[in-house]
Amino acid sequence: MKALIYDGPGRKHLGERERPQIKDVGDAIVRVTHTTICGTDLHILKGDVPTCEPGRTLGHEGVGVVEAVGSAVSNFRPGDHVLISCITSCGRCDYCRRGIYSHCVSGGWILGNAIDGTQAEYVRIPHADTSLYPVPAGTDEEALVMLSDILPTGFECGVLNGKVAPGSSVAIVGAGPIGLATLLTAQFYSPSQIIMIDIDANRLAVAERFGATRTINSRSEDAVAEVKSLTDGRGVDTAIEAVGVPATFELCEDLVAPGGVIANIGVHGVKVDLHLERLWSHNITITTRLVDTATTSMLLKTVASGKVDAKKLVTHRFTLDGIMEAYDVFGRAAETQALKVLITP
Amino acid sequence: MKALIYDGPGRKHLGERERPQIKDVGDAIVRVTHTTICGTDLHILKGDVPTCEPGRTLGHEGVGVVEAVGSAVSNFRPGDHVLISCITSCGRCDYCRRGIYSHCVSGGWILGNAIDGTQAEYVRIPHADTSLYPVPAGTDEEALVMLSDILPTGFECGVLNGKVAPGSSVAIVGAGPIGLATLLTAQFYSPSQIIMIDIDANRLAVAERFGATRTINSRSEDAVAEVKSLTDGRGVDTAIEAVGVPATFELCEDLVAPGGVIANIGVHGVKVDLHLERLWSHNITITTRLVDTATTSMLLKTVASGKVDAKKLVTHRFTLDGIMEAYDVFGRAAETQALKVLITP
Amino acid sequence: MKALIYDGPGRKHLGERERPQIKDVGDAIVRVTHTTICGTDLHILKGDVPTCEPGRTLGHEGVGVVEAVGSAVSNFRPGDHVLISCITSCGRCDYCRRGIYSHCVSGGWILGNAIDGTQAEYVRIPHADTSLYPVPAGTDEEALVMLSDILPTGFECGVLNGKVAPGSSVAIVGAGPIGLATLLTAQFYSPSQIIMIDIDANRLAVAERFGATRTINSRSEDAVAEVKSLTDGRGVDTAIEAVGVPATFELCEDLVAPGGVIANIGVHGVKVDLHLERLWSHNITITTRLVDTATTSMLLKTVASGKVDAKKLVTHRFTLDGIMEAYDVFGRAAETQALKVLITP
Amino acid sequence: MKALIYDGPGRKHLGERERPQIKDVGDAIVRVTHTTICGTDLHILKGDVPTCEPGRTLGHEGVGVVEAVGSAVSNFRPGDHVLISCITSCGRCDYCRRGIYSHCVSGGWILGNAIDGTQAEYVRIPHADTSLYPVPAGTDEEALVMLSDILPTGFECGVLNGKVAPGSSVAIVGAGPIGLATLLTAQFYSPSQIIMIDIDANRLAVAERFGATRTINSRSEDAVAEVKSLTDGRGVDTAIEAVGVPATFELCEDLVAPGGVIANIGVHGVKVDLHLERLWSHNITITTRLVDTATTSMLLKTVASGKVDAKKLVTHRFTLDGIMEAYDVFGRAAETQALKVLITP
Repeated sequence: MKALIYDGPGRKHLGERERPQIKDVGDAIVRVTHTTICGTDLHILKGDVPTCEPGRTLGHEGVGVVEAVGSAVSNFRPGDHVLISCITSCGRCDYCRRGIYSHCVSGGWILGNAIDGTQAEYVRIPHADTSLYPVPAGTDEEALVMLSDILPTGFECGVLNGKVAPGSSVAIVGAGPIGLATLLTAQFYSPSQIIMIDIDANRLAVAERFGATRTINSRSEDAVAEVKSLTDGRGVDTAIEAVGVPATFELCEDLVAPGGVIANIGVHGVKVDLHLERLWSHNITITTRLVDTATTSMLLKTVASGKVDAKKLVTHRFTLDGIMEAYDVFGRAAETQALKVLITP
Repeated sequence: MKALIYDGPGRKHLGERERPQIKDVGDAIVRVTHTTICGTDLHILKGDVPTCEPGRTLGHEGVGVVEAVGSAVSNFRPGDHVLISCITSCGRCDYCRRGIYSHCVSGGWILGNAIDGTQAEYVRIPHADTSLYPVPAGTDEEALVMLSDILPTGFECGVLNGKVAPGSSVAIVGAGPIGLATLLTAQFYSPSQIIMIDIDANRLAVAERFGATRTINSRSEDAVAEVKSLTDGRGVDTAIEAVGVPATFELCEDLVAPGGVIANIGVHGVKVDLHLERLWSHNITITTRLVDTATTSMLLKTVASGKVDAKKLVTHRFTLDGIMEAYDVFGRAAETQALKVLITP
Repeated sequence: MKALIYDGPGRKHLGERERPQIKDVGDAIVRVTHTTICGTDLHILKGDVPTCEPGRTLGHEGVGVVEAVGSAVSNFRPGDHVLISCITSCGRCDYCRRGIYSHCVSGGWILGNAIDGTQAEYVRIPHADTSLYPVPAGTDEEALVMLSDILPTGFECGVLNGKVAPGSSVAIVGAGPIGLATLLTAQFYSPSQIIMIDIDANRLAVAERFGATRTINSRSEDAVAEVKSLTDGRGVDTAIEAVGVPATFELCEDLVAPGGVIANIGVHGVKVDLHLERLWSHNITITTRLVDTATTSMLLKTVASGKVDAKKLVTHRFTLDGIMEAYDVFGRAAETQALKVLITP
Repeated sequence: MKALIYDGPGRKHLGERERPQIKDVGDAIVRVTHTTICGTDLHILKGDVPTCEPGRTLGHEGVGVVEAVGSAVSNFRPGDHVLISCITSCGRCDYCRRGIYSHCVSGGWILGNAIDGTQAEYVRIPHADTSLYPVPAGTDEEALVMLSDILPTGFECGVLNGKVAPGSSVAIVGAGPIGLATLLTAQFYSPSQIIMIDIDANRLAVAERFGATRTINSRSEDAVAEVKSLTDGRGVDTAIEAVGVPATFELCEDLVAPGGVIANIGVHGVKVDLHLERLWSHNITITTRLVDTATTSMLLKTVASGKVDAKKLVTHRFTLDGIMEAYDVFGRAAETQALKVLITP
């Protein structure tokens, strides 16, 4: 079968691989019908993710059809249409029992990282019963690819951890795909303000169409002063970091009101300065989170009932044969205005 | 009347002042029967608290008897025995309505800071109805001085923010008065482990008597390795910072388990390094808080019902005439083994 | 001034009364610009509310302009436009400190009940600082009359107590003004289903326009069977009782899924049967609540930001001179299709 | 092997059965080392539990040693010492993902009910990975039998659902084994008052030794008047029903303060009267729950760390050969003063 293979820092190719087989009683083999590329895949290609070794099939997002299941799988049968979670969870370890699936002792983020992933015709999913989700009849399966990672990430790490609430004020720093997924799912809670901050005019325009009540280009505007003026001088109830560099996290420290929350989503490569000499008395909360995909069932319901149109994050479409070009387009997002690229094997 | 007066950085004296008078309809005048000295008073004397100007009567903790009340005060009458909260709250502003009394727009920590405090024979308490608490009949009033600040601080900023729970594991970094108050109130929730970390052998010995399940002298032991070995290699569910310097906060970053909480209590003078390059995916929560004294009524019940013996934090006793010596003893705590000094005007 | 006066069971008249005066330092006198009639006013007229004695001016909802304030009032000044809460709260008693304003020891629901109310040209509001809310500049003041009682009641007693959540399923039994206010505010949380149940076809048609995903006329349809079929046989996550009779509460007992909530809003006159022989093992929660108006500030923000159009509950308009007719129209709602009647002195 | 077999209403015998075998990849076979009898077993013998058919081996509590495991079991191996949960949970269904294990679609309370139970030498445990718990080294295994059902039931259905908190007031109606388990675990949260109500003087004496701050014999004392006088006329924050008849539930309705919780534990056979005509405005919460054993891991830690001495609930000991006598002693608890009887095959 065809698969996109990581060849070490800076290198990848579309190659031929053996079809995956059932290795454990809890496994399922899924024929991938749609997949996509994540910012994390670019991190792997930069060599930032040492657990991902050369030879690995990349990809941790996807929708497909079950081909085969191991003897212990009870929730799925061949022919079932399924959503693949980016997080593999056993459902039995102490972390899983607490809903912290991202830290499952025999799972977590392993797909397209420690084991072969979804940018291929077929993929093996361990712990299938607790790592796949049935696609509700009549759902647009293309839209569901956004539920493998990006929507639960924005929702869990940003919206839920950020305690977004009716009438509250929210600032989202970073209007890339994750920031926009956060913007879409923040609206589940009807905050009165969602202020989107970025330096890319196109992405801010998209944010406005997606429901931001105000956008700030922090290259040309003083984001802190603007946010303060929009919030009676206090700052926002929730500041969400969706970039992953010190400057944006430290901006959140300046944006958050006393009693508020900074919810970090960004993948950080270096430490940041935490200004406790000012914040120690501000009654704030800071959260970090690798997505648990604990809300996937709930998000499926919101998509099915039309509360969110996940598909509008898709800007480009490719076949698996065109995946090298898809990576190129996705990698030059500022030029191409790409958000999510849909790949259909 | 006699009062301990701040004369600018490094200087103070016990002097004579006019008795305070009712200035606002919500005020009460309280005759102080017991007060104490807080680590924050030492910060003021170092010149670290610019809102506190020379000439100010220090002190924000105390118990006393109401002398007079303004026309809008309905909860108290002259002769009532009262506990003075270190936090003044109006009960009417947006922050107060949310229980964030520490950020009350016309209150917060103002006593012995922006207005004259409790290290005197009499003190004026604004917003008396919501800043004083009736002393339950039969309660040991000496013990209650610990409820003005230190017990609610340990409990709210450390125990509640830290989500201490039955069966959980807790590390408290710093075994000074605040750390010990945290240790005492953490036991309200029956955690299975409370590990106390400090560099002072005497304080660690006190911690053991106060209920620590393990003490670690981080001068001679590798605190991180010890804590990991006590927690199956994971770290603690709750790491509480009760010192206020970068090294101890950063130690907490190393102690906390995935899914855990770092609850900061310490008053910090400089920024700290937050290692998001490691912690971004650890699903942790960090909290800061200036005590709200939102739990004072509840703490009064736990003291009255014998759930906590607050008085055992008192190591030395002085009259108001001896307050200069009390400061000296409290300031040389490592030598004198002082925890809290009780001052009885 | 003119006022609608209760003359004992079944009787009322529009009469002439002395203008109210400041009686306490915390009072405000408000000139009423808009008021309305509540179902509870009809209860009083039936003689069901013994705390309301003949001679009382009725009404507990309203918007107006401050005329005068007592010496302890700090949040408001003459000329301020204010929303009047149906709940008077001192902000100082134990219940108020816990946010249970409805049980304030010197307040609660007293307006138009134990003291004179808002269906008059002027009204005296005790504890003004914590019982009035400033009208945000530019807000439609007519819409705000819905925030005195009906919107916070639907939101707090129904939506918050019912734990309505993104993707969840909700049934609201009763499509009167309170049920419709619940329907409007339930949408703040983006549930995937809101099923509205009533026996009045007109009200169900309104419910559909207001966002119900399904309406059931329980006179002609089997509500339990329908709800079960809409929820995979399980029942709803949240069943909200908005009528106040045994049959509708017991219907909720049949509608709620294991793990779900029954949130009671209805004012009940007799006991109901609780089928614990079936429900003891269903892991359900039942809540009751007299509205606390603890969310009024938040609701003001949602109205100001356009998240809810409260004014669409208004079906009829009258002047104060026409209030006797307004009562008649409101009292014959099934015929007149009245929801809320707006009265403008 | 020997097993206690249900022969239909009123009849049982100790007989000989085939040893259970692995039937599913997720099963484990456990050699029972300790078991006990539950009040629910007596309900079955009365014929109250139609899902339990004649021929069934009774018992849903136990500790033992793993003999064999199915191919999908990853957490346990032969020789492991394990605690058996009374609730079987698959860990994969929607209810299990939400922590409502009691409503697991292929589990729940099935042991000694829909499938053969633990009052035997061996027992088959389906979904072993999520229905067994490893016994921590060095733990007293006799004490752990109390963790199969009675301690999690008291803790989850009574203490957690009842929101017991530091300083709060609690009344527990019923001082049988479940009420006493609730009393023991309520102390994890340091309430200031735990009032125990029963009509059995011996059980109330036990309650006093186990930590009740006050006991009331409701046969000779007016329980409502006493509780009101102990709580400033308000009633308790938490009223816990641990009997299962209308009179005791309705007593809880009279005991609970505004803003409080009634947590039902009792197994009810008939409906009760819910006095909504009074309680609709009292802001109370009523909860029901079949135990989920979601806190078993946590309770194991509290037992291991000495926070609770579960073993003191054991009053009598028998071998499996003496189980008929054990049932007799347990069934005549008022005379024999039996709480829990320990049975050691």
